[in-house]
Amino acid sequence: MSLNEEVELLRNIPLFSKLEGSKLKLLAFTSERLTYEAGQLLCKQGDMGDAAYIIVDGEAAVLIDSASGEIRVASLGRNDFVGEIAILCDVPRTATVKAESKVVALRISKDLFFRLVEEFPQMAVEIMRELAHRLEATTAQLREAKSA
Amino acid sequence: MSLNEEVELLRNIPLFSKLEGSKLKLLAFTSERLTYEAGQLLCKQGDMGDAAYIIVDGEAAVLIDSASGEIRVASLGRNDFVGEIAILCDVPRTATVKAESKVVALRISKDLFFRLVEEFPQMAVEIMRELAHRLEATTAQLREAKSA
Repeated sequence: MSLNEEVELLRNIPLFSKLEGSKLKLLAFTSERLTYEAGQLLCKQGDMGDAAYIIVDGEAAVLIDSASGEIRVASLGRNDFVGEIAILCDVPRTATVKAESKVVALRISKDLFFRLVEEFPQMAVEIMRELAHRLEATTAQLREAKSA
Repeated sequence: MSLNEEVELLRNIPLFSKLEGSKLKLLAFTSERLTYEAGQLLCKQGDMGDAAYIIVDGEAAVLIDSASGEIRVASLGRNDFVGEIAILCDVPRTATVKAESKVVALRISKDLFFRLVEEFPQMAVEIMRELAHRLEATTAQLREAKSA
């Protein structure tokens, strides 16, 4: 894929759609594009993590281990962002992310993540929104589980 | 309280500790300091919300209503930040926050919140960290509830 095609691909990801061309080029140079087959893991609960991922194409499941087995807590698709908890909190991965089809993902290292947020606060707002939505959804699931 | 005292108070809140003096003054002018007695609500689950709060002093409980009654999901103390989900996601309050002692809180309107994040990305990183920590804690509670 040429640099221009890579930049176009990035521009179509809502999280980056407002980044200037020069920053998109930097991102294209510094992020890594990875391909997973169905069943492969993007990250594994308990492992240390030094990167977040953006799903460029395909579907993945977010799974957590519990005493009563594996629980599916979310489904991911194109443009979804995942894996940021381990890099924000310096804790091991809190969930496993498993490809459910062929998945193309952009790997954003911890360093790059903080550089992007620093230079582009709007991206921080989008990520805060996403985290807040997930917190709301998880709180709703907890409420339900406790009511059961 | 004089403006200088107010600025000192703000500077001692970790979320604002790295803000420049001029921004702290702006914050002192534009935020609102409120006092609650034990038992009073800072916000109520289900209500629309247009502000977040920073606890300056005192203790508060985060409570959610469920079919089996009220569940206490978190305790808040000095410097804790709460109420940002409703302003980030434009959803009704996802929990009730109740003062458990006399509480002094700083009310940050939605507009001010987004202006601060825009001008001071480091604050966005702190808030992302806090949201990620809470998401991790809630996910752990969910895992436990599902295992029970």
